[in-house]
Amino acid sequence: MITTRLTRMFDLDHPIVCAPMALVTGGALAAAVSHAGGLGVLGGGYAGTLGGEPDLKEEKRKAGNAEIGIGFITWALEGAPHWCDWALEQNPRCLFLSFGDPLPFARKAVENNTPVICQTQSLDHVARAVDAGASVIVAQGTEAGGHGADRSTMPFVPEVADYLTNHAPETLLLAAGGIADGRGLAAALMLGADGVLIGSRFWASAEALAPDGAVRRAIASSGDQTVRTKAIDSLRGVPWPESYSFRMLKNGLTDQWADRETDARAAIGSLAENYNRAREAGDFDIVASVVGEVTGLVTDRPPAAELVARIAREAEQCLGRAKGYLA
Amino acid sequence: MITTRLTRMFDLDHPIVCAPMALVTGGALAAAVSHAGGLGVLGGGYAGTLGGEPDLKEEKRKAGNAEIGIGFITWALEGAPHWCDWALEQNPRCLFLSFGDPLPFARKAVENNTPVICQTQSLDHVARAVDAGASVIVAQGTEAGGHGADRSTMPFVPEVADYLTNHAPETLLLAAGGIADGRGLAAALMLGADGVLIGSRFWASAEALAPDGAVRRAIASSGDQTVRTKAIDSLRGVPWPESYSFRMLKNGLTDQWADRETDARAAIGSLAENYNRAREAGDFDIVASVVGEVTGLVTDRPPAAELVARIAREAEQCLGRAKGYLA
Repeated sequence: MITTRLTRMFDLDHPIVCAPMALVTGGALAAAVSHAGGLGVLGGGYAGTLGGEPDLKEEKRKAGNAEIGIGFITWALEGAPHWCDWALEQNPRCLFLSFGDPLPFARKAVENNTPVICQTQSLDHVARAVDAGASVIVAQGTEAGGHGADRSTMPFVPEVADYLTNHAPETLLLAAGGIADGRGLAAALMLGADGVLIGSRFWASAEALAPDGAVRRAIASSGDQTVRTKAIDSLRGVPWPESYSFRMLKNGLTDQWADRETDARAAIGSLAENYNRAREAGDFDIVASVVGEVTGLVTDRPPAAELVARIAREAEQCLGRAKGYLA
Repeated sequence: MITTRLTRMFDLDHPIVCAPMALVTGGALAAAVSHAGGLGVLGGGYAGTLGGEPDLKEEKRKAGNAEIGIGFITWALEGAPHWCDWALEQNPRCLFLSFGDPLPFARKAVENNTPVICQTQSLDHVARAVDAGASVIVAQGTEAGGHGADRSTMPFVPEVADYLTNHAPETLLLAAGGIADGRGLAAALMLGADGVLIGSRFWASAEALAPDGAVRRAIASSGDQTVRTKAIDSLRGVPWPESYSFRMLKNGLTDQWADRETDARAAIGSLAENYNRAREAGDFDIVASVVGEVTGLVTDRPPAAELVARIAREAEQCLGRAKGYLA
C-alpha cells in the first residue's frame, strides 16, 4: 500500500489513475482498475461528436457497480454538453476534463459535489484549472501517447507542484506521460506528485478497447519509434485546437506526413475516408497505434488488475530502497 | 551524502555531474562543482572549430588542481582530433562525448585508462556507446537546454536502464534533461539512474560563462517559454547533423523561425553575421538564451557550490521521506 493525499481523497489502495482514453477506456477497463484498488476513469472521448465511438451509456453499464470516474475531451464536450449532465447524473467518482476550457463543466460538477480532475499541458492551463475549481491537477508531459502538447513530465511536474504550493496548496497533483511502471510512480512522488495518471500501459491491457494489431506493434517497438505530430488530425479532418498534437507509433503515414504539418493543414480532411477504411481493415500502417514513449516498457497485454499490482509492488520496492542511498 | 555506483566510481560526495556546456562550462565552473563534491566537466565544445569559443587551454588552467573531466561535441571533434589527444594528456577524470560517433575517441580514452562518459539521445545511441567502451551512459531527454533530440527523460531513463541491465550491467547510467533540483535527482534514482547530469541549473551559476542578460531572461521565464528547433543552427550556418535540435528561450527570432525548419535550411548561414553582431550587442531577442524547460525552476544565479549543496540536501530530504509513503 502506498498512501498519498490521492489515496486518502478517493479511498484507493494505490495512487494510480487509469486515463480516460478516447475509444480505449471502456467500462471493463475502468472497472478493472477501480476493483484493483486504483481509480478507473471511463473515456467519454469526443462525447459522440466524432462518429465511430463506443456507446458511452453501454460502457457505463459494463462497469457495473465499480466506482469509476468519467472523462471527456473538453472542446468536443462543448458540442454536446448534455453528456456532461448525463455524466454527473451517474454520480461518478470524478469528472475528468482535458484539452479545452474546463470552466463551464467544472462549475456544474462542483455544484454536484463531484470532484473535478483537470489535465493540463502548460502552466497557464494550471492556473485556469485551479480557477475553475479543480480538486486535482494532472501535469501531462509530451511523452504521453495520444493528444498532448510540448512540456515534458520531469521538469513540468515540479514546476506545477511549486505553483500549487504557492497558489492552491489543497489541490492535488498527478503526473502523466512517460509512466508505465513502479519506477515511474516512485519518481513521480519524488517530483512532488500525489499519484500518477497512466494511459499507454493500460492501453495495452486485456480489457482495453485498443485493437490487438496496434498493441502487438507497440509490444514490438522501442520508445524511439513514436512521433508527435499535428498532421494526422488534419488529414483525418478532426478539428483539434492548434495547440495540441498527437503521439503514436511511427508508421507509413507518419513517415510521409509527420514533418509536414503545414501541408497537412492545407489538405484538411483529405484522408478521412481512407483512414476509416484502413481502420475497418486493421491496417496499422495507416491507422494510428496510439501509444506513448513508454511503448519501450510495454512487453505484454495482461489484465489491468495485474498491471495495477505490478506497478504498485515495484513502486513500493523503489521507495523502500530510497533510504539506502543515504550513506 | 548520497551514495551510488557513480559516487563510488569517481569518489564523489554527491551523484551530480555538471554538463560540459559549450561556451559556458569553463574552468571556474567545472572546478567549483568538483570542489563541492560533484564532478565538473570542462566544456570543450566545438574543439575550436566554431570560432569565438573560450581558449580551452586557458580554461583548463583556470580549473587549477581541481579533478575535472573534459567534454566535446563529437562530430566537431572529428574536425580537430588533436584536441582529444590534448584532453587525454591532461589526465581528466573522464572524457565526455556527445552528439556523434564516439568510437574513435572512446578507443583512445580507453587505451589511456580514462573513463568515457557518452551522452545519448536514443536507444541506438546507447548500443553504440556501450560498444565503444563507455563506462557511463547519459540518457538525455528533449527537455534539456541546448542541443538534444526527441526522447523525454521520464520514459527514456528506465528504458535505458533495462537495456543496460540486459546488455552491460557494469555500465553506469546518468539522467539528463529536466533536472535542476533535489526532486529531480531523487526521481532519477527511482528511475534507475546512478546520478544526474545537470546543465541549465549550472548555466545559471555565478561561475558559468553564460551572459548575464540571458540568465536574467531565464530567471524571469516559466518552463512554458522554451522551444526546441533546428532552425537557428541552420540560419547561423552551424552544420549540426540533421537528427539534433536546439532548445532555448523563445525570443523574436524563434517566434519568426522555430516552426519553419525547412525554410531555415534553405536559408542556411543567412543570419550568421547578424547573429554575431547581436551577440556583441547582447541582444537576446536574436541571440539564444540557452536554457532548458527547467528555466521555470531557476530563480537565481548563486555560486555553483551552493547549487550542489542545495540539490544534494533536497534530494536527501526526498529520499528520506520516501518510506513515509508506505503505509
